[in-house]
Amino acid sequence: MTGLRYSTDGPDMALLTAVFTPFTETGELDLDTVPKQADDLVAWGSAAAYVGGTAGEGASLSTAERMALAERWCEVAAGRLDVIVHVGHSSLTEARRLAAHAESAGARAISAVAPYFHRPETVDALVDACAAIADAAPALPFTYYHIPSMTGVGLRASDVLLAARERIPTFAGVKFAHNDMVDLQRCLHLAGGRHEVFVGVAKLVLAAWQWGARAAIGSVYNFAGPLFRQLLDHAARGELAEARECQMLAQQVIDAAARHGGELAGFKALGSLSGVDCGGCRPPLVSPGPEQVAALGAEVTGLGFACRGR
Amino acid sequence: MTGLRYSTDGPDMALLTAVFTPFTETGELDLDTVPKQADDLVAWGSAAAYVGGTAGEGASLSTAERMALAERWCEVAAGRLDVIVHVGHSSLTEARRLAAHAESAGARAISAVAPYFHRPETVDALVDACAAIADAAPALPFTYYHIPSMTGVGLRASDVLLAARERIPTFAGVKFAHNDMVDLQRCLHLAGGRHEVFVGVAKLVLAAWQWGARAAIGSVYNFAGPLFRQLLDHAARGELAEARECQMLAQQVIDAAARHGGELAGFKALGSLSGVDCGGCRPPLVSPGPEQVAALGAEVTGLGFACRGR
Amino acid sequence: MTGLRYSTDGPDMALLTAVFTPFTETGELDLDTVPKQADDLVAWGSAAAYVGGTAGEGASLSTAERMALAERWCEVAAGRLDVIVHVGHSSLTEARRLAAHAESAGARAISAVAPYFHRPETVDALVDACAAIADAAPALPFTYYHIPSMTGVGLRASDVLLAARERIPTFAGVKFAHNDMVDLQRCLHLAGGRHEVFVGVAKLVLAAWQWGARAAIGSVYNFAGPLFRQLLDHAARGELAEARECQMLAQQVIDAAARHGGELAGFKALGSLSGVDCGGCRPPLVSPGPEQVAALGAEVTGLGFACRGR
Amino acid sequence: MTGLRYSTDGPDMALLTAVFTPFTETGELDLDTVPKQADDLVAWGSAAAYVGGTAGEGASLSTAERMALAERWCEVAAGRLDVIVHVGHSSLTEARRLAAHAESAGARAISAVAPYFHRPETVDALVDACAAIADAAPALPFTYYHIPSMTGVGLRASDVLLAARERIPTFAGVKFAHNDMVDLQRCLHLAGGRHEVFVGVAKLVLAAWQWGARAAIGSVYNFAGPLFRQLLDHAARGELAEARECQMLAQQVIDAAARHGGELAGFKALGSLSGVDCGGCRPPLVSPGPEQVAALGAEVTGLGFACRGR
Repeated sequence: MTGLRYSTDGPDMALLTAVFTPFTETGELDLDTVPKQADDLVAWGSAAAYVGGTAGEGASLSTAERMALAERWCEVAAGRLDVIVHVGHSSLTEARRLAAHAESAGARAISAVAPYFHRPETVDALVDACAAIADAAPALPFTYYHIPSMTGVGLRASDVLLAARERIPTFAGVKFAHNDMVDLQRCLHLAGGRHEVFVGVAKLVLAAWQWGARAAIGSVYNFAGPLFRQLLDHAARGELAEARECQMLAQQVIDAAARHGGELAGFKALGSLSGVDCGGCRPPLVSPGPEQVAALGAEVTGLGFACRGR
Repeated sequence: MTGLRYSTDGPDMALLTAVFTPFTETGELDLDTVPKQADDLVAWGSAAAYVGGTAGEGASLSTAERMALAERWCEVAAGRLDVIVHVGHSSLTEARRLAAHAESAGARAISAVAPYFHRPETVDALVDACAAIADAAPALPFTYYHIPSMTGVGLRASDVLLAARERIPTFAGVKFAHNDMVDLQRCLHLAGGRHEVFVGVAKLVLAAWQWGARAAIGSVYNFAGPLFRQLLDHAARGELAEARECQMLAQQVIDAAARHGGELAGFKALGSLSGVDCGGCRPPLVSPGPEQVAALGAEVTGLGFACRGR
Repeated sequence: MTGLRYSTDGPDMALLTAVFTPFTETGELDLDTVPKQADDLVAWGSAAAYVGGTAGEGASLSTAERMALAERWCEVAAGRLDVIVHVGHSSLTEARRLAAHAESAGARAISAVAPYFHRPETVDALVDACAAIADAAPALPFTYYHIPSMTGVGLRASDVLLAARERIPTFAGVKFAHNDMVDLQRCLHLAGGRHEVFVGVAKLVLAAWQWGARAAIGSVYNFAGPLFRQLLDHAARGELAEARECQMLAQQVIDAAARHGGELAGFKALGSLSGVDCGGCRPPLVSPGPEQVAALGAEVTGLGFACRGR
Repeated sequence: MTGLRYSTDGPDMALLTAVFTPFTETGELDLDTVPKQADDLVAWGSAAAYVGGTAGEGASLSTAERMALAERWCEVAAGRLDVIVHVGHSSLTEARRLAAHAESAGARAISAVAPYFHRPETVDALVDACAAIADAAPALPFTYYHIPSMTGVGLRASDVLLAARERIPTFAGVKFAHNDMVDLQRCLHLAGGRHEVFVGVAKLVLAAWQWGARAAIGSVYNFAGPLFRQLLDHAARGELAEARECQMLAQQVIDAAARHGGELAGFKALGSLSGVDCGGCRPPLVSPGPEQVAALGAEVTGLGFACRGR
């Protein structure tokens, strides 16, 4: 269904990492860091890399950069890690180019947000847009990426799922990045065994797992993959109290990152502390300075969160 | 200041047209229509063409298409019409490419919205983004395009103006596309004679003129330029009641367009009825069908609005 | 802690009903229906009646009506049902009067929303307001009722919980009526065994139960109490698939009510169909007409939802 | 039309003051200050007192307090100042009581916001609510008070005006407290000579005057009435540059108040500095402390704003 090789038998949940895009100190794309990122994901067992999405600052890259990035990921991941390329763009023309490129570069799947300047106002218009993108990579599964806080498109993801699976032959499912658990439940219910609902809010992983979700995509797994693996191991063994403790610790770490320079920039800083340094964020995002990063590191250590690799 | 050749002596207000982008029936860029558009603007006295903005669906075009469009406009406008190229993009890298290209293509000025996926959260971050763009076209005046409904960036335009003129050598002013008259007044006050405030809400043209505004940019001038010229003539002669009648008629025409297929798609339909047919809108926007267009035409005719060219 | 007599030992979850306020055909308070409502709650095992809240249209009643309503509920419930009186008001002066009255009338507990015209802008200001109300009924447990969609006060409930328990001696917990599962989880975590988190979104009952919640307050229990009892029985027996089926059916019934005349008015219509007729809603809410009610009844029957009492 | 005695002949604009409600240090209603307030309004030429509205913290008072306040204003204003009583309430039952009381107490007019907990969702439902209130004071003109930021009811005021004048025999007009100049223009246009549009945003007084508005209601006139009289005198003499200077100074003073403790609490502090001390605000609003008030006074003095009475 999703074209990905993780297993959803049993109680386990696959953790797919929305990878950061590495930049040099002057803000150029730093493709040499990609192999380190891939090694790291393989090391702790991430099920796939989701490339060029929100955490990957895809919208801040040029189309050429996005293609170069996707190619590199496909090369280094070959045979050991699935690559999903995010191809969403305000221009469907560019999105289609990115989709076709992803297919030719060897990606396993594509995914896209709704167009986010001129926005679709109905589910039909949104699904038409998704279909146009999916159609440009006809061999790859397509996942709609629902993230109203970024796109301003708040149409219910569950309604999109219902319409998209009728219209798009390669429709794989929904990446759900919104706190609204009611709509998430409806997605999980409607998806049944036929489509995937990728939980896109790390703070809701346990709740979604309890509702039957078997895959998550997120940027926190860049630095907190092992914590979430632990969470899921507890859950699978029926140790809910312990699973909740892990979930609450994750919450606190995420809140700390948000306080120290904003959620994404703070996450990227935690990623750097945890082993693979991807540099700062591109403007218009503002990266925390060294002092803020140190304070963040101290705070999460104080919470009992061990940065990986140390 | 703005690099444009319209005059702001006396009571007149320059009307700059945010031109539609012409598409063929299959949705391809239709550059052959551009000369007709330019002729039309010259004919009724539009002060300039603003290319590839919101009305021009710039965000729905590929970068290559945007460049081709800008080039064609610069060619056909040469010597008779100023061209301002909108270069805003979610990616500053692409925006800078577009800015440099606009300069080399012979544009008179550039303009940009705030980045609209990853969004600047402070005035400083926004002005940094503008500076990066302006810096790529150092010979051209730069105008910040304030349109919170599209970008989700609601930082006060007047605060941006204050900071930008200290930071950006080529800063020309603000295109203000928001109903908030309080902030618009503050912009006009702060701009003084040094910077331009382009009124970007056609419904506020008279109110802004009364506050001293001397330039407007909008898509309604694609089809209602003469009505607004009439409005301004009345205003300049002190015939405020008549000026208000023109303004209210414009309001009604705009509301009718909004009801028949959405503001932009409805405007584009009115443009087609008025002489230069630019085709429909690109997805994700949905164009009204022939029946809706006919109903719209009938409604605005009933209001007493004469479509141009007839 | 809450002053209520339901048990939270074991896996069961107490269902407290946010009762409708009965009106005559001319919109007058119809206190004669209250005993029937109370009998009905006792019959299916509702743990308590929450009186004069959102579903009870407390904000649409006069203070005198609210007092008369609270008195009648305390009378008819005596010895067999706990009564929580909602005393929130835009005026803290009125809220304090209502609180003192509830105590003298024999209520077991009080609860209040945030002031909702002039709104507290900080957690401190909100907790001060809660403290002022709680202080007027010093013998009764106080529950903060978090419902941002109605009050416009979006301060995190979990932050309110943290501050309120330090400041308010009678603080019992939070009634959480918001789709944001992240904040709900944080509330449940922080509450521990010391405070109650009443789940206020019926669509989240199962998810919250899985997170350890042991009490819910809602208006759907006016007509769907048995369905939720069934849901919880399945959950307690570990039959999660069946529990989810119940939850999804509830979702569909709620969505149907929302489509037929708005969530509250539609709920009240379902309540009437289910046995105890409480009449329509007071303006400014608009009640569905007989045809809409019939269509709603047919739709929910078609979903497999049996209206109680039939 | 409005039942008020101000003149709208000629270019002048009537300034009606939305009076603060005076409180003692312990937060009790301080009716002894009302005569001083009335004297002050008469002294500088305010056209009327608008009592118990947003600035009057009407929603924070009990119904009994609102009645006592209205009575006192009617007494002290008798024969020299018109009194408009705001009777809006979340409960239409209470609003109708307040309306009937206002009529019996000798008010010249009533006014009400939309119900603000359960909110009308259509123009029809809102006008029904207004009609129910107006009907309880059949001898008094009724003005709808449009203030979406407080009520959460964003239905276009111009649409309400259109419907209300068909439905409500005593309909007088609209108090427009919203920055949206487009809707304000439409109100002014539709009102024609038949209904009043009271400008409720002090920052838009000049713009609205230029559009033909002839009355404003606001809380700034508690402390800045003379500045606005000066503004209007300049405008009437065609001295627009000077009028704009006054308007911009008002803007700056308002912004300063907003920074020092919030718009309303800061306004009330400025009122105290200007002669009639009405005390602080009631919770849940937070009043600035003495140091903040002093800083505010210094800031506005630095702007060139002379507090009255000094």
